[in-house]
Amino acid sequence: MNTTSQATHPATTGKSPAAGRTGRWQAVGVGQATIAGGFWATRQSRNGERAIPAGQDQLEAAGNLQNLRLAAGIGEGEAIGPVFADSDVYKWLEAVAWEYGRNPSDEMLKRQRELTAVVAAAQREDGYLDSVVQLRYGDEGRYQQLVWSHEHYCAGHLIQAAVAQVRCTGDRELLEVAMKLADHLVATFGDGDGQTVDVDGHPVIEMALVELYRETGKQDYLDLAKWFVEARGHGIIANHGHEPAYFSDRLPVREAGTVEGHAVRAVYLAAGATDVAVETGDEELLAALKKQFEHMWSTKTYVTGGLGARWEGEAFGDEYELPPDRAYAETCAAIGGIQWAWRMLLATGDPQYGDAIERMLYNGFLAGVSLSGSEYFYVNPLQLRGAAHPDNNRSPAHGRRGWFDCACCPPNIMRTLSSLDGYLASTSADGVQLHQYAEGTVAAGEVALKVETNYPWAGAVRITVEQTTDGPWALELRIPGWAEGATVNGDEATAGYHRIERSWTAGDVVELQLPLATRVVGSDPRVDATRGCVALERGPLVYAVEQVDQQADVDDLHLLPDAAVAESHDPGLLEGVTKLTAKGRVGTGHRAGWPFEPDAEDRVGAEVDVTAIPYYAWANREIGALRVWLPRG
Amino acid sequence: MNTTSQATHPATTGKSPAAGRTGRWQAVGVGQATIAGGFWATRQSRNGERAIPAGQDQLEAAGNLQNLRLAAGIGEGEAIGPVFADSDVYKWLEAVAWEYGRNPSDEMLKRQRELTAVVAAAQREDGYLDSVVQLRYGDEGRYQQLVWSHEHYCAGHLIQAAVAQVRCTGDRELLEVAMKLADHLVATFGDGDGQTVDVDGHPVIEMALVELYRETGKQDYLDLAKWFVEARGHGIIANHGHEPAYFSDRLPVREAGTVEGHAVRAVYLAAGATDVAVETGDEELLAALKKQFEHMWSTKTYVTGGLGARWEGEAFGDEYELPPDRAYAETCAAIGGIQWAWRMLLATGDPQYGDAIERMLYNGFLAGVSLSGSEYFYVNPLQLRGAAHPDNNRSPAHGRRGWFDCACCPPNIMRTLSSLDGYLASTSADGVQLHQYAEGTVAAGEVALKVETNYPWAGAVRITVEQTTDGPWALELRIPGWAEGATVNGDEATAGYHRIERSWTAGDVVELQLPLATRVVGSDPRVDATRGCVALERGPLVYAVEQVDQQADVDDLHLLPDAAVAESHDPGLLEGVTKLTAKGRVGTGHRAGWPFEPDAEDRVGAEVDVTAIPYYAWANREIGALRVWLPRG
Repeated sequence: MNTTSQATHPATTGKSPAAGRTGRWQAVGVGQATIAGGFWATRQSRNGERAIPAGQDQLEAAGNLQNLRLAAGIGEGEAIGPVFADSDVYKWLEAVAWEYGRNPSDEMLKRQRELTAVVAAAQREDGYLDSVVQLRYGDEGRYQQLVWSHEHYCAGHLIQAAVAQVRCTGDRELLEVAMKLADHLVATFGDGDGQTVDVDGHPVIEMALVELYRETGKQDYLDLAKWFVEARGHGIIANHGHEPAYFSDRLPVREAGTVEGHAVRAVYLAAGATDVAVETGDEELLAALKKQFEHMWSTKTYVTGGLGARWEGEAFGDEYELPPDRAYAETCAAIGGIQWAWRMLLATGDPQYGDAIERMLYNGFLAGVSLSGSEYFYVNPLQLRGAAHPDNNRSPAHGRRGWFDCACCPPNIMRTLSSLDGYLASTSADGVQLHQYAEGTVAAGEVALKVETNYPWAGAVRITVEQTTDGPWALELRIPGWAEGATVNGDEATAGYHRIERSWTAGDVVELQLPLATRVVGSDPRVDATRGCVALERGPLVYAVEQVDQQADVDDLHLLPDAAVAESHDPGLLEGVTKLTAKGRVGTGHRAGWPFEPDAEDRVGAEVDVTAIPYYAWANREIGALRVWLPRG
Repeated sequence: MNTTSQATHPATTGKSPAAGRTGRWQAVGVGQATIAGGFWATRQSRNGERAIPAGQDQLEAAGNLQNLRLAAGIGEGEAIGPVFADSDVYKWLEAVAWEYGRNPSDEMLKRQRELTAVVAAAQREDGYLDSVVQLRYGDEGRYQQLVWSHEHYCAGHLIQAAVAQVRCTGDRELLEVAMKLADHLVATFGDGDGQTVDVDGHPVIEMALVELYRETGKQDYLDLAKWFVEARGHGIIANHGHEPAYFSDRLPVREAGTVEGHAVRAVYLAAGATDVAVETGDEELLAALKKQFEHMWSTKTYVTGGLGARWEGEAFGDEYELPPDRAYAETCAAIGGIQWAWRMLLATGDPQYGDAIERMLYNGFLAGVSLSGSEYFYVNPLQLRGAAHPDNNRSPAHGRRGWFDCACCPPNIMRTLSSLDGYLASTSADGVQLHQYAEGTVAAGEVALKVETNYPWAGAVRITVEQTTDGPWALELRIPGWAEGATVNGDEATAGYHRIERSWTAGDVVELQLPLATRVVGSDPRVDATRGCVALERGPLVYAVEQVDQQADVDDLHLLPDAAVAESHDPGLLEGVTKLTAKGRVGTGHRAGWPFEPDAEDRVGAEVDVTAIPYYAWANREIGALRVWLPRG
């Protein structure tokens, strides 16, 4: 059979003329894979109905749309907001396109077309486009401080939006703008005669150019993406007088052994480098990226999948530096982590990347948005103390907010939720892979599957083959690493991709059972900040203890060493969650005085019940103390 | 008897016309108290012989001195460096003055007079003085952005230098400059007609004005200091569009229950407020400051006495947020902490403040300077991982440095070491108090004491009364809180001030014995970052484990639960330290993969010896992994 899809997802290699040269699997895109109900469908409908419309209002109120109108010659005034203001508009446009792809509506198309016309009008004759630079600095101001100006970053998000538009709505107007801009970049940057050797301080252009290459087949775009990836780590940013580590510019990508510096920049660059490695067949680069991902995953990732341990520089910390209280774990970093892992998964077929996506998606990412769908966390700590004072406008002690001065996260969440269908499944020459389990359908070439499940609350997944080709093909189901005792049609299935290769008949059913028993996990001893603590997990969900549910002060709450954990599904709690309860104890309360004494850890207080809810759902009732990691003992 | 001293220390209340209205004790100043040998004498001679001369060279190289010359009309050019550049010059001048007070030299006097003449020439006709503002913005630029401009901060350091000069050298030239500047401030700031209601974003002017009042008796200076203290917490900084917590401006000083925001700013303000409370007899304000100090000491202070848990904003964290790895613990914050504690000690006679000064002095402060005396840490972490990458110019992973772009710490260390004699002792109407133990002498009125000790390496302190008045008076000796089993002349002495009231004869000897047995301390359970760990202390010293001394990787080193700790004095190690050794073990090495598993904490590796050195001495051989807190088990 041939299951090659009409792939429409941003990370697809399937639509590319160079598809699969090293990539193993091709994505099943939005529209072919559909989420039709259950956990994620609720989030997606809130996203489409509330967040995206509200986002347009926020972009209007914050001046982002006005900047583009001014650059288009509509009205007069000065640019307002940060230098990367355009990028938030483009991320929002991308979200609108994917949303149309999964749920076409005239209203969405109208919003897209109106705004696209403004963007097109704002573009300079030679293809350059950045409304803030145009308004503030004019043509002479271009690329004067690329390390901070985000000009390529904005271009990258424009390109991603354009690709999503053409794939989901068929509209080519923004693609024309994107190609004109990309052609301008191709002419301007590189080490040829008269070209500029420079890189943007904030990667994303790399991923975008590869996608544009996949969409258009124009080799120049891939070449420039490769050039930007290879240019890093050769002193460009240090020569501008900046510390290179923050910008992922300390070492060439193919020589780095870890991720460092600003977390979002680091993972966006890695995702783009993965695209380049796949499309150019560069196995050495792919191997380096695999090593970096594994080092990140084993030493610099929170149990929630959150990335970035430091507020200072919004950065990765040193290895095993993972403080729960001062976790930065920016929502955008989880999104970038998902994008990177998805590209690695398609490139390698290694199930660790599917597991990683699941962990980031259900926890570090999803905590970034409220149950209501339109309020956001920028920073996602794993602990908040009761007395925490919000000393910063991004402080989680404020609770989620409708927008931010630096508003990168909200429209990034929107585009991720509206394109989420594209992360469910992939195809290969001989089969179909299911990576994430959600109620819905998967159409891969002539094969059509129906998926029924109440995941993540229940572990049963029923897959019905609704349409099939003749002859054998393989259905591959990801068995998560945590799912000890999983079965497929009653047979034991171990972690990794469980492969069923056979001939199929319409109506065939495969029953997957993932055991969701609560897991009590500890930390590698080198993770100093969570020594002596445990976290609770159930299925793909990491749990958290929130003050509103407790009998005692969360700041001094301990879990008893051998406490049994009881599970109960509560449809009325937080729109329906399975909560966990166990026996704990408190300390001895607020003893004053010097806290470092020979007997400092020996005090034991009264027993109490401890109630845990899924981490993603915290801070939806009130803002109070939070703990993912509980001291045990 | 009357032991009232010719107090010359910056924190003295003894020299003030309002002395002792609420203050209990008066300082014995530099020159009356002398450190003549031993531990601190070594640091002081390095400071005088190396650091202070090198500091002048650094101030020249960095442009600070040139700024003042330009403002004085000598040469032409633009101001360079940060807006607070003048303050580093004034701190250096203050250090020179105290240094002269303890060890008069023509060379020091010459340096002082030459530079003072430049400062005087730089002052504007109306008393204003800030070379950077004068050169960059002119007279119209004054006080336009006081939240960031540090104009009062620079004035405060000038005033402190002037007071030190007049006290230690008798020179009044800088005092004239200081009074002219202070008179200008008195005329300009306040809520009278035509005055400006504003505060400097960085406190220090408060302490300085009270000292100037003590020196000159001019009530206006005390009144303005009080006005600046009372003006805080009423929205001034928020009205300028800044988050007030960073600037200690969220709550009025007398209403705050803790310290927050930028640590140096917070403790400088608190120290100045203490001065105001003492000189105005404001018991309510003093009670608020006592509460704030106690909250800081019990919830926001590292075991080293280090202050400031966050790199972001160089700030205090929430209560019990004390990560060893990302400790900021700025050297200046320890200095400010000592200044505040010293004022609280004199005001209240509460021994906790003497204990606090000792802890900060021997650990959090002293780690800020190299054994060589002229290299400095800005940031003083309690843990550095082996793979730490220096991503910031203040990163301790660089090792100590000769200077910084923001060079607040080096001259602050210089002035603290050169005035250290002033922290040894105080007097009251009926006696003499010894707070810190160092080889030397104390002259308090007609009483003269000789102190002989090898502290902190040995716990014996021999005090000889060399001169005395007739009639009884009390000798009060601080018994540190850690010194269980201390004796005075063979009698048990409990923590606090041990008082011997009697008539004395020249030649009388008092023998104090402080037991220095190693203490293995844990943490209050609410200090999450050091759960399951212990630190080693001996006498006033906190210990640390440095990679260079170990058989195994410090990042994964554990102390065995009941390991006996052996002590040995090694005169050849780090210029002579008592080192500690105990049995430990390693983990199981660098297992790759996801670090959060049900059995994650169960792995135990081979036994090894663990060697600890005093924390202050780390990073004097090489820069490598460091731990103050070791996992136990």
